Amino acid sequence: MRYGHFDDSAREYVITTPHTPYPWINYLGSEQFFSLLSHQAGGYSFYRDAKLRRLTRYRYNNIPTDVGGRYLFVNDGGDVWTPSWLPVKADLDHFEARHGLGYSTITGERGGLRVESTFLVPLGETAELQKVTFTNTSDAPKSFQAFPYVEFCLWNAEDDQTNYQRNLSIGEVEVEETTPSGGSAIYHRTEYRERRDHYAVFGVNVPAAGFDTDRDTFVGAYNYLGEAAVPRAGKAANSVASGWYPVGSFQVDVELAPGESKDVVIVLGYVENPDEEKWADDAHQVVDKQRAHALLERFATGASVDAAVTALKEHWTNLLSSYSVRSSDEKLDRMVNIWNQYQCMVTFNMSRSASFFETGMGRGMGFRDSSQDLLGFVHLVPERARERIVDIASTQFPDGSAYHQYQPLTKRGNHNLGSGFNDDPMWLVGGVAAYIKETGDWGILDEPVPFDNAEGSEVPLFEHLVKSVDHVLTHLGPHGLPLIGRADWNDCLNLNCFSTTPGESFQTTGNKTGGVAESTFIAAQFVLYGKEFVALARHRGDEAQATRAADAVEAMTQALLTDGWDGRWFLRAYDYYGNPIGTDAHDEGKIWIEPQGFAIMAGVGVESTDPTSPQWAASPAGKALTAVEEMLGTDHGMVLQYPAYTTYQVHMGEVSTYPPGYKENGGIFCHNNPWVIIAETVAGAGASAFDHYKRITPAYREDISDVHKLEPYVYAQMIAGKEAVRHGEAKNSWLTGTAAWNFVTVSQYLLGVRPDFDGLVVDPQLGPDLPEFTVTRVARGATYEITVTNSGTPGRRASLTVDGAPIEGRTVPYAPAGTTVRVAAVL
Amino acid sequence: MRYGHFDDSAREYVITTPHTPYPWINYLGSEQFFSLLSHQAGGYSFYRDAKLRRLTRYRYNNIPTDVGGRYLFVNDGGDVWTPSWLPVKADLDHFEARHGLGYSTITGERGGLRVESTFLVPLGETAELQKVTFTNTSDAPKSFQAFPYVEFCLWNAEDDQTNYQRNLSIGEVEVEETTPSGGSAIYHRTEYRERRDHYAVFGVNVPAAGFDTDRDTFVGAYNYLGEAAVPRAGKAANSVASGWYPVGSFQVDVELAPGESKDVVIVLGYVENPDEEKWADDAHQVVDKQRAHALLERFATGASVDAAVTALKEHWTNLLSSYSVRSSDEKLDRMVNIWNQYQCMVTFNMSRSASFFETGMGRGMGFRDSSQDLLGFVHLVPERARERIVDIASTQFPDGSAYHQYQPLTKRGNHNLGSGFNDDPMWLVGGVAAYIKETGDWGILDEPVPFDNAEGSEVPLFEHLVKSVDHVLTHLGPHGLPLIGRADWNDCLNLNCFSTTPGESFQTTGNKTGGVAESTFIAAQFVLYGKEFVALARHRGDEAQATRAADAVEAMTQALLTDGWDGRWFLRAYDYYGNPIGTDAHDEGKIWIEPQGFAIMAGVGVESTDPTSPQWAASPAGKALTAVEEMLGTDHGMVLQYPAYTTYQVHMGEVSTYPPGYKENGGIFCHNNPWVIIAETVAGAGASAFDHYKRITPAYREDISDVHKLEPYVYAQMIAGKEAVRHGEAKNSWLTGTAAWNFVTVSQYLLGVRPDFDGLVVDPQLGPDLPEFTVTRVARGATYEITVTNSGTPGRRASLTVDGAPIEGRTVPYAPAGTTVRVAAVL
Repeated sequence: MRYGHFDDSAREYVITTPHTPYPWINYLGSEQFFSLLSHQAGGYSFYRDAKLRRLTRYRYNNIPTDVGGRYLFVNDGGDVWTPSWLPVKADLDHFEARHGLGYSTITGERGGLRVESTFLVPLGETAELQKVTFTNTSDAPKSFQAFPYVEFCLWNAEDDQTNYQRNLSIGEVEVEETTPSGGSAIYHRTEYRERRDHYAVFGVNVPAAGFDTDRDTFVGAYNYLGEAAVPRAGKAANSVASGWYPVGSFQVDVELAPGESKDVVIVLGYVENPDEEKWADDAHQVVDKQRAHALLERFATGASVDAAVTALKEHWTNLLSSYSVRSSDEKLDRMVNIWNQYQCMVTFNMSRSASFFETGMGRGMGFRDSSQDLLGFVHLVPERARERIVDIASTQFPDGSAYHQYQPLTKRGNHNLGSGFNDDPMWLVGGVAAYIKETGDWGILDEPVPFDNAEGSEVPLFEHLVKSVDHVLTHLGPHGLPLIGRADWNDCLNLNCFSTTPGESFQTTGNKTGGVAESTFIAAQFVLYGKEFVALARHRGDEAQATRAADAVEAMTQALLTDGWDGRWFLRAYDYYGNPIGTDAHDEGKIWIEPQGFAIMAGVGVESTDPTSPQWAASPAGKALTAVEEMLGTDHGMVLQYPAYTTYQVHMGEVSTYPPGYKENGGIFCHNNPWVIIAETVAGAGASAFDHYKRITPAYREDISDVHKLEPYVYAQMIAGKEAVRHGEAKNSWLTGTAAWNFVTVSQYLLGVRPDFDGLVVDPQLGPDLPEFTVTRVARGATYEITVTNSGTPGRRASLTVDGAPIEGRTVPYAPAGTTVRVAAVL
Repeated sequence: MRYGHFDDSAREYVITTPHTPYPWINYLGSEQFFSLLSHQAGGYSFYRDAKLRRLTRYRYNNIPTDVGGRYLFVNDGGDVWTPSWLPVKADLDHFEARHGLGYSTITGERGGLRVESTFLVPLGETAELQKVTFTNTSDAPKSFQAFPYVEFCLWNAEDDQTNYQRNLSIGEVEVEETTPSGGSAIYHRTEYRERRDHYAVFGVNVPAAGFDTDRDTFVGAYNYLGEAAVPRAGKAANSVASGWYPVGSFQVDVELAPGESKDVVIVLGYVENPDEEKWADDAHQVVDKQRAHALLERFATGASVDAAVTALKEHWTNLLSSYSVRSSDEKLDRMVNIWNQYQCMVTFNMSRSASFFETGMGRGMGFRDSSQDLLGFVHLVPERARERIVDIASTQFPDGSAYHQYQPLTKRGNHNLGSGFNDDPMWLVGGVAAYIKETGDWGILDEPVPFDNAEGSEVPLFEHLVKSVDHVLTHLGPHGLPLIGRADWNDCLNLNCFSTTPGESFQTTGNKTGGVAESTFIAAQFVLYGKEFVALARHRGDEAQATRAADAVEAMTQALLTDGWDGRWFLRAYDYYGNPIGTDAHDEGKIWIEPQGFAIMAGVGVESTDPTSPQWAASPAGKALTAVEEMLGTDHGMVLQYPAYTTYQVHMGEVSTYPPGYKENGGIFCHNNPWVIIAETVAGAGASAFDHYKRITPAYREDISDVHKLEPYVYAQMIAGKEAVRHGEAKNSWLTGTAAWNFVTVSQYLLGVRPDFDGLVVDPQLGPDLPEFTVTRVARGATYEITVTNSGTPGRRASLTVDGAPIEGRTVPYAPAGTTVRVAAVL
């Protein structure tokens, strides 16, 4: 069942009913001001930091699920309704929500009145705009009141929901009934009297007939928000908040002839004043509003908002121009050209901070998360990727280990999620290699980067990568495999934790020392990124480092194939005591997905690239991929391990705390499915790879939206596994490494166009489903028009013709910036 | 305007409308299991720790204010309503909520069906019971469905509202359609599969016709709770939660003949299983329910609940028997005999953790808070007061300073609210003196008590008190007044902080060192409790300590009267730079309440006890009390300082962050009003004292409940001051030191019956309003029947006759336990 459809030409997803299984959201903003916006206008806004500078209040896990947003109440002759359906929930004659790239439009119509609101954060602004167009679709004149409404958050979102003893006494606002640009404005200035130098402005571009800033007055005691008193009365109460709960609302009176339309612009802005311009009066009682006035002036007309929307669309057209595909599969095209890249940019902006599943209060930027996200956005914003790499590397310790996360505002490492995750160091190598392949900017390796942000400790970035390699090689266990430390990529595989205290964090509790827990995942990761390191070292002429790493990669490969191998698949780990995990000898957790994908992606055990051949079936890669499909495969993607654990395993930690089939305990953890898919392309099994890709990719799941539940335009972190009660149900959409890895998978391995150090590789592997397709890739300033003719024959690789001339191999040398290269690939 | 009335004979407050200005609550439980319960059945339950063992979910600052509770939906032939009015809010033909001592009864009637629910936590149980009586008040038979409902919290209340990425995958329940005692039960067992050994049971004592445990099924997507789908359908869906949000609900079918009544018992219990009895099956998939079954069996009938209510009422009758008054002022009697003592016990149980203004997540037990609370409950539960004193003293440091708070579960000090509040040490002396006066248990001074909970550091408690005195005397400033440290009693007077960072905590940020900020409050506190220390030392024969302290008290008294004096009142402090605070020379913050009350209460500047005399008017005490009335007095109590600060004072900190008239910035901070009232009795101004008492005491404010807003049966921390927009509006009811101090004030100083070391003092001072009254006081096992004949003449003190014989002075020597002493006091 669907709840809408894609509009590919507009690059929008169109939701045609408010009754989706869960709120389906969009992100506005890409610089400093961000908003989350559901199809029912729920969500909230913040400036830079979702915890410390929250403009509006949102209540997670509420009843109903999605209340808290920017709402527009309409009182049309006593009939009170909201065009976003929520919160009033009056039936609508027409409803449509369109989520586009950085903007959304929500339209509701009832009783001959059509209200269309377009929301966006304009480029260069710290404000959310809402352009509302009222249209009288009836045959009679209309006269009605509209009440735009927001509820302010008292800035620190965590304090806002815990420190009531203070907070219920500090709310303050100012009201400006007529602004210089002829509208009205409400200023939320709680704590501005003391140390804050910032306020929020909520403005409307027409003179309001009244206002409200006191929540109890606007909503009425004991009313649900949908029953709000002021809209019901059809008349603003001109309430001024003092203590308690400040809100912003205006009464806007509108008269429309039949067929007539009128625009109203609503602005929610964030303004900082320099110390010397903080006050408008000597007594320091009145906020200086100059900057707010300028903002309101800039968006005083509907046309100014239209221009901002146009500029934003052009911005996105430019961003998305570096990779696009044209094929017969519209689902593929829309994911590659629009939504997957869009989600990658959102993960760049948000990391894991603020979604409808993440409150924006707990987590900073992850060392590992950001390194992987970078794989998905480096082609979009390479200069910001460079900055991100330096930020990440600056939180590395001199021994190569790293903080597991750092704060985006301070860029300092913190211990909220602990440290000692032994996979962290090598992700840096992967990220740097991807950046250099994309840009050719070898100079980044010489960039001075400190350890733990300590001034004076700067060394060239390349030395950080050496430390990463060192860290793995100085932390090997008895089987020559890397020690896992606190955990590897699977945060929940806590082999040294042994926690027995209820509620204790597995990420920060003291580890038991003296064990020998090893990770095959880190081993495979070392093989993959160790090879990249060798290439980087060779390019610098550092043959000693190159040789040392190459030898270590070879040794690690052998360790994986011997002590890391269970007979039909790769083991997952050795536990604290040296016993294997992920072996057929156990009843539960026999096989785990991560090492199968990552090892084969790194080439380990790949002895044939023809999946129809006996060599393939006999090879470790062939065996492992066969076992993966048999034991982990489902219609909804591949589960993380099988069978799931039915009881708590104190020696394994959090992974076994989840009910079977959820999250890391046998859930379809979408982040690692791409590793198997890439592994399949590496091993020549393109048809299976493309099939696995489609099972988790949202556009292909749109028809089962009632099962999937979440947005059909972005990936979710998790889909409930085959042992879960609700198999197929997705959770935690938007902020997941799944976005980056799937874009890498589809763009670089299925469609097969990937930058390498010396040229653009063209090596599609996706089976027979797409006989022909075209990829346009802009790399290092040149444009590559790549036409693929694809038989889909197993074992077949592409032969290339570049500008009419056949070439050896599958690497198209980089062309000068500004040129266009035509590539024909046949396989 | 009132919203109800007191029922003194039942010891209940009766709320007669759901439409109070704010939810009016009660506390259930006094041992290990606690519930907050509003008159609309909102609130939540927890076991011991409101943060770590939360049974049910509550959302603070929600819209509407009070949704989240134990609700009973009724579907009577399609008419859906809730007897608690919320959450359905269908109009009721009759509504009444009675808050009693540890129990409440909520009755709603609609369409000929009356539903009366009595809630309590029985003594000795870890469960909240609800006995529901359905009565058919119509002339026709009735057949309807009732749906009791709770929403489970996933144990850790903080994690529950922040960690959705995990929490939305872990919810688990078990359903038992028929329990051994013939009812039905739902077991909330989230995380029981792993490290938790506890679960919640939600049971009903009759066989349910159906159940629901999945919130989305019960409520329905996008429904407000009042629109819940299952009650509307009149039929349970038998949903089983898996991940997402577990709830508990039953369908109970009831048939009633005209006039017939039926009882149903609902149980919400907390159960812990020992490790070896955790599971009922070998596969460890089914919770062992033996303990829950026993609980359900114990309360399988309405009669068993009635018996528990009776036992609870007897418990309270016993508790309250040690102090009671009979007078012509029913408001006075009900506050003294019932509500003020009840509130003291609630502050004993809760400290400042969980109210409708405190989330139960942030704060532990305060060193200072608990020392003062003790003054109000030591006569009720002296043995628990003793334990509390030892707990508090154990968190003292060897230099006499202390953690500002400690965790009730671990009894260890923590730094969440910092340390270095220089008034903390002397509160311990005050608490110990009060305990010994009440009990005569001098042995407590020899009790071995550690420093900072360090084993081996134990010294006799008396040595801790010596350290307290030492700490003051080793931290004196240039005027011989005590240095203030981080703050004194006024947490918000941060004279060494100089914070300029928005949102930074004044309690924990690093202080600036090198300043000379001094506190007259601590000086006055030292005089008052220094005198107590002298008495304790003398009793032990430690003349050296006694003399040293007496000399220091005298020096401090002189310092207050010279450098602590502004001409018409006591200064409040000297700031970091040595400039005075609280002086007529300033435009704002001229006079502060704390030192006026505390210094005069300690006898400083008291040169006459006849307020009509010229000596009185010329004395420092007389001048200060006159200025207090003039500058701080209002109809709603005395404000903390005047004029309030209109701008941020970086050298004073948090006090100036509040808008004028709120909280510590010119609010009526009720906690310190009693100090002035006691001071007035000390200075002989009884009439004014009694007047000031009435202005803040809730029973006297019942008639202005629409202004006061909060419960008229318990004190609030704050009433908005005269410079506030909403002057007279109360905030933060229940958990405030106001409760203890007002009970001390009214019982010991206005009514004038107070235990001293050697006997019971009888010294009433309350002006002419009460010509006659009787106090019954049980002290050290003997009962004192005290009859007072009171002319109210200024300057007059009581003459006493004991068992018919006049005595010298106003101290009745303690009589042997078991005896009754008749005291006649005339003044």
